[in-house]
Amino acid sequence: MTEAKGYAALEQGSTLASYSFERRALRSDDVAIDILYCGVCHTDLHFARNDYFNTVYPLVPGHEIIGKVSAIGDDVTKHSVGDTVAVGCLVDSCGKCSPCEHGLEPYCEQGMTLTYNSPDPVSGENTLGGYSNKIVVKDDFVLRVPEGLDPQRAGPLLCAGITTWSPMRYWQVGPTTKVAVAGLGGLGHIGVKLAVGLGADVTVLTTSPSKASDAIALGAHDVLISTDEEKMAAATGRFDFVLDTIPVAHDVSPYLALVGLDGVVALVGAIDMLPSFHTGGLVTGRKSLTASMMGGLPETQELLNFCAEKNILPDCEIIAMGDINEAFERMERADVKYRFVIDMSTL
Amino acid sequence: MTEAKGYAALEQGSTLASYSFERRALRSDDVAIDILYCGVCHTDLHFARNDYFNTVYPLVPGHEIIGKVSAIGDDVTKHSVGDTVAVGCLVDSCGKCSPCEHGLEPYCEQGMTLTYNSPDPVSGENTLGGYSNKIVVKDDFVLRVPEGLDPQRAGPLLCAGITTWSPMRYWQVGPTTKVAVAGLGGLGHIGVKLAVGLGADVTVLTTSPSKASDAIALGAHDVLISTDEEKMAAATGRFDFVLDTIPVAHDVSPYLALVGLDGVVALVGAIDMLPSFHTGGLVTGRKSLTASMMGGLPETQELLNFCAEKNILPDCEIIAMGDINEAFERMERADVKYRFVIDMSTL
Repeated sequence: MTEAKGYAALEQGSTLASYSFERRALRSDDVAIDILYCGVCHTDLHFARNDYFNTVYPLVPGHEIIGKVSAIGDDVTKHSVGDTVAVGCLVDSCGKCSPCEHGLEPYCEQGMTLTYNSPDPVSGENTLGGYSNKIVVKDDFVLRVPEGLDPQRAGPLLCAGITTWSPMRYWQVGPTTKVAVAGLGGLGHIGVKLAVGLGADVTVLTTSPSKASDAIALGAHDVLISTDEEKMAAATGRFDFVLDTIPVAHDVSPYLALVGLDGVVALVGAIDMLPSFHTGGLVTGRKSLTASMMGGLPETQELLNFCAEKNILPDCEIIAMGDINEAFERMERADVKYRFVIDMSTL
Repeated sequence: MTEAKGYAALEQGSTLASYSFERRALRSDDVAIDILYCGVCHTDLHFARNDYFNTVYPLVPGHEIIGKVSAIGDDVTKHSVGDTVAVGCLVDSCGKCSPCEHGLEPYCEQGMTLTYNSPDPVSGENTLGGYSNKIVVKDDFVLRVPEGLDPQRAGPLLCAGITTWSPMRYWQVGPTTKVAVAGLGGLGHIGVKLAVGLGADVTVLTTSPSKASDAIALGAHDVLISTDEEKMAAATGRFDFVLDTIPVAHDVSPYLALVGLDGVVALVGAIDMLPSFHTGGLVTGRKSLTASMMGGLPETQELLNFCAEKNILPDCEIIAMGDINEAFERMERADVKYRFVIDMSTL
């Protein structure tokens, strides 16, 4: 066991506060990591507040982790002491089911083990996340941070990044694809960069005319104000793929209308109930509505490699650990361009 | 112009009655057809009643037409006098847009011309359908009835058949696919036969335990009673593809739960507003909800050829033209196994 310190929500309704705890002793297939940076995801706030009614307190959030390997177990083969590594949203899965065998661990038939607020499959203890100075993670769930990828800004690729990358890869977004990205927050802004990196023709859909210049600055080729009915009507069928990052319940009909024959609208925002919509929106173009989680480990490594090669990084505001509660408040009112990252040396 | 007779709804609220009218003079690319049989589709009833608020009366329904070529225009190349031919749901499209160029005429960007209740693109006159003894149709929209396909029972392939065939082909249903067919009416019963013909492992989902033996008789390998919560839960993730033929608004969540990773639920029943559902049903397996219309001309010809080769035919009850109003009533209470076909010699 190793002493660790971090920030935790100690009970429902409390803000995050300094917290000391123990990380498990290294198992033979474990990697011990000194955390350098951890991205701040809206999910962290949802869990801290028990929005999903399943939070086990104390909760240490954080699943966009960048660090350096400090020790390895005897059977570790993938990583060495001193390596710069990353840990995303999940730290274990059964490894035996068909999704696991295909590198799609988030869809593990036994259920994946989340980086925080999940029972560890060996000890049964509640996992504690990356808002801390150390973490111990199974070798297979630790990713390599490639040479040339800025560790300070790479963290958000591990949740926001992979969540947008995964459906774009699955639906084969590439140089001939016309992509619309709906919503320009944490997910949307990296979705734009990745779609541009994949060579797609990228348009940002936003309700806010004020975001148009931001969208272009991020690399988007065009902007469509989704409240402009005339321009939306003129864009009917113009796209192949809509990456819908809007994180609240909304009518998908206007987005279905924007895609042409065999078009796809992929929901990646965390919404619960999808409002009723007319099936004509699907029928008229053999269109598909889909949704997905983060990607699997191979796909996440692919993303990190791609971003290193293409020099793609999220736009981040680096904060001190002590600023996390203010950052949560600002994130809630979308007052961040586009993602907070905690510098763990401030802990 | 040629004198034709048929059955028409003369005004909203009236039953179908005998009706005399004229078919257009042959254009150079036209095929004149003596109609032998015409299938009865639920859509016919919807249009007769003005359920879509766009019926132009007098309405002659019918878009599952089998007949013999009686004359051809000078430029006709595909068909000869005496050929047994078929006409389905559409009789024209622009021929120039991308969907048309890809043989997906129902998705024509200019809008297809329906076999009935559509303005003819040349004359502007309202098209009149197959509940009649003669029809004149553009060469390209006339299909060949292959040797060995029973003309008496082939009609329903042209709407019910192609509507289920098209999504199964698009989503590559084949010998390794586990297919569930939801609903066992006109569409569902032929969907079962076609899925079995494609080599898939086919289960019928139905609310009616009484339909279990019918499903097995149609070739299904298994039946799942969708009101049996325990069995439905046990079947979670068991299928790759659900062909959802249920023709009324319903919650798709139970069907999304039945498909596994990357599974697809394809809606082919005529429903309008899809009730609100939880997006978790899509997210948890990167699943897709899709919907489609009938297929294009090449795909419909492929279906006719496939059915001739595999000896697949809809189960039909042959009726006289004068029995159409009773047939409509029986169709409404699902009292038909599984499709009515009008023998046009009774006209």
